[in-house]
Amino acid sequence: MSNTHEVDVIIIGAGLSGLSAALKLAKQKLSFVVLEARDRPGGRIESLRAEANIPIDIGAQWISGKHLRLKKLVSQFGLHTVSTFKKGKNIYDLNGKLVKSKQPPIPFISLMDTLQFTRQLNKISKQINNNAPWEFGEALHYDKVSIEHLLQTKMYTRDGRKYFSLLLEENLCSHLYEVSALDVLWCIATAGSIQAIQSSESYHIKEGVGTLIQRIAEDLKDNIYYDCPVYSISDHENFANVHVKNFCWKANKVIVALPPNLQAKIDFNPPLPASRAQLLERAGLPSVTKIMIVYQRPFWRKQGLSGISYSDIGPIKLTMDTSPQDEKRGVLSVIVSGQSARRLENLPYDRRRNEVIKCLIRFYGEEAAYPLEYFEKNWSEEQWTRGGYGFHFPPGIITNYNSTLLKSVGSLHWAGSETATEWRLYMEGAVQSGERAAKEVIKRLER
Amino acid sequence: MSNTHEVDVIIIGAGLSGLSAALKLAKQKLSFVVLEARDRPGGRIESLRAEANIPIDIGAQWISGKHLRLKKLVSQFGLHTVSTFKKGKNIYDLNGKLVKSKQPPIPFISLMDTLQFTRQLNKISKQINNNAPWEFGEALHYDKVSIEHLLQTKMYTRDGRKYFSLLLEENLCSHLYEVSALDVLWCIATAGSIQAIQSSESYHIKEGVGTLIQRIAEDLKDNIYYDCPVYSISDHENFANVHVKNFCWKANKVIVALPPNLQAKIDFNPPLPASRAQLLERAGLPSVTKIMIVYQRPFWRKQGLSGISYSDIGPIKLTMDTSPQDEKRGVLSVIVSGQSARRLENLPYDRRRNEVIKCLIRFYGEEAAYPLEYFEKNWSEEQWTRGGYGFHFPPGIITNYNSTLLKSVGSLHWAGSETATEWRLYMEGAVQSGERAAKEVIKRLER
Repeated sequence: MSNTHEVDVIIIGAGLSGLSAALKLAKQKLSFVVLEARDRPGGRIESLRAEANIPIDIGAQWISGKHLRLKKLVSQFGLHTVSTFKKGKNIYDLNGKLVKSKQPPIPFISLMDTLQFTRQLNKISKQINNNAPWEFGEALHYDKVSIEHLLQTKMYTRDGRKYFSLLLEENLCSHLYEVSALDVLWCIATAGSIQAIQSSESYHIKEGVGTLIQRIAEDLKDNIYYDCPVYSISDHENFANVHVKNFCWKANKVIVALPPNLQAKIDFNPPLPASRAQLLERAGLPSVTKIMIVYQRPFWRKQGLSGISYSDIGPIKLTMDTSPQDEKRGVLSVIVSGQSARRLENLPYDRRRNEVIKCLIRFYGEEAAYPLEYFEKNWSEEQWTRGGYGFHFPPGIITNYNSTLLKSVGSLHWAGSETATEWRLYMEGAVQSGERAAKEVIKRLER
Repeated sequence: MSNTHEVDVIIIGAGLSGLSAALKLAKQKLSFVVLEARDRPGGRIESLRAEANIPIDIGAQWISGKHLRLKKLVSQFGLHTVSTFKKGKNIYDLNGKLVKSKQPPIPFISLMDTLQFTRQLNKISKQINNNAPWEFGEALHYDKVSIEHLLQTKMYTRDGRKYFSLLLEENLCSHLYEVSALDVLWCIATAGSIQAIQSSESYHIKEGVGTLIQRIAEDLKDNIYYDCPVYSISDHENFANVHVKNFCWKANKVIVALPPNLQAKIDFNPPLPASRAQLLERAGLPSVTKIMIVYQRPFWRKQGLSGISYSDIGPIKLTMDTSPQDEKRGVLSVIVSGQSARRLENLPYDRRRNEVIKCLIRFYGEEAAYPLEYFEKNWSEEQWTRGGYGFHFPPGIITNYNSTLLKSVGSLHWAGSETATEWRLYMEGAVQSGERAAKEVIKRLER
């Protein structure tokens, strides 16, 4: 028992959501610790450094103008946002044709079709209660089918469907037939509209989003313990014991700010209620590899290209220009996701890199063959994450199991971007969910 | 290191599949242990005793005439099978009407419809490679949609669909929109045909299936360790260390005979390959509660009833008569599954029991109100199982992830009824998968 230490609150996980909860608790007269399995904070957020001290966001990166909590954190910690470069033509690699164009290269009627479908989705999503998407009248109707099915039945043009699928697949990191239509509607509801989601890549943090994490973690450094995976939690209703290797923490309240798939690995005593346990066992993150490529200059800009590309054959699904504002170097953010990510991860490094570079040459010409630096991170291989960006549920899960997602169990409260009721699955959602969980806990402790 | 013990093979899990692997290994000159988390063998198989020494199979129960491996075990261990009582009329509680009839009370044309659909499913399933259902030409086509979608598009009559859904939902313990059409086709393929599946409830074991488990476990008693949940496995390619509380087992090969959702809880070092880890994180068992009710006599038989009932409103989905042959007592096996099981588990015991009895009174009259004994087991609440009967995957999972289901990783081999290539998800499949994994291991060790 000498190996037990007591605090008011234990936060498990030093991702953005756990850290946001911690920042809230730090303002109270409450003692707390943050236990983190990795040797670093940030979870799915991580920044590396290229030469010339250029920040490389190898995980989450983009921010919308509407991410008010995140923007507040950015300025509070003395950092700066920069607009994502979007001037010039995009690359559309669609239907076997590669087109450079400002507008998606599909017939006007198909563009209208995407517009009417966008409107329909927005309208339906307005009926959703962000706290309980399983409740609205047609919830089951939309949870029974995949978003692909909705697309097939509510869009009228082939090109419209193809284009919309392209955008959506990049967002979900999954095939559209894998994801419940209700899941997508829920995400739209928590962001406000599809237009809001489309503008979610408007900014990134000049110093790298990892710098934000570092500064927050620095502020909390006396409270954070790294290399501390949690093996088991014994919940005694009024307090809980949280076991890490050779040590035990005791607290009145616990905020679990881990992704559901990792929560499922913890040995809970008593075992979790059946429905919550079954929910966790159905939560896997999609496959995604992020690649950051540094060139001498953002050479595509000279060609009148924005650096944005979409492809339906890949292996690259999306590229974006995230070069430093002074154009000292050219940086491309590259996303490989879903089936392509799983195929590529089984290739040796050289062949994988080769395929990616070949694809970039196809998009941007011969100059793409000569990067200065090449960073890659397969988030599916990360033991303490196992994928990205966020959790999307297959048909049936939300209406059958997700009502247990937010409900506290004994001393245990839940955070994490998938529990967000605003900007679900985004960094903004991570902050919101962490703050919400902290508020829950503070309220309970005040009683 | 004094706390390490070495054997040739470690089997994790003393369910039917782990025990079957163990029986195979016992015939070789190989040392082995079976590590089991519970204090009993059997996993999803368990038998209790009612008064008058009547066996009560509170988990898996039924056998088909085609379950050759299982029947061999039954006679090898001196036990006996009895035919399931099926004489008389069934209860069909369908479309708000309760009908007592030998045949399903649907129009002839709808019966023909179910027949043509059965034929279609059988025909498609013939194309499936039982080892790799994701490989056949139309695999993706059928994995993209739920079995409900297939039913909606390939059946022509409302009543036919309703009746077929009823049978299928009982089998899957899930809503039809939750399960991939390919998953169902795969199950049909490994059983041989839908007709084979329909005859899978032909027999049960006179002494209780738990007695079979006990006798096998008794045979292996020096090798089985109970209360031994495995926390982590360190795989060194040529050997592995398997850690249980305060102890470590070392072996050349490990057979993991746990359900995937429990495999996901183990800390693997090195971490599992991305795709396998992601597969495990997508595998949850459906909700099912089995209730066994003992009456003074099988009174329904006097009414000319078989004791078999199907209901689309429930809460009982299925009942079957499993009384002892001498009719000394009447025993009804009752299945509550899916959404009903999840609803009922949140009620207090008395109300839950009340609902079940009320439903039985509706089926079999006032006499059903007076059971001698009432046993229930909610398999979703069992920490070391979390549901039943078997794993059914939502759309997209099989073609995207399941290719890693059978593939050994380093020293680790996989067993369990979900890896069976014959009678997948049945007890017969558990035996087949255990024997297959044992053969794999024996072959590798012989080299």
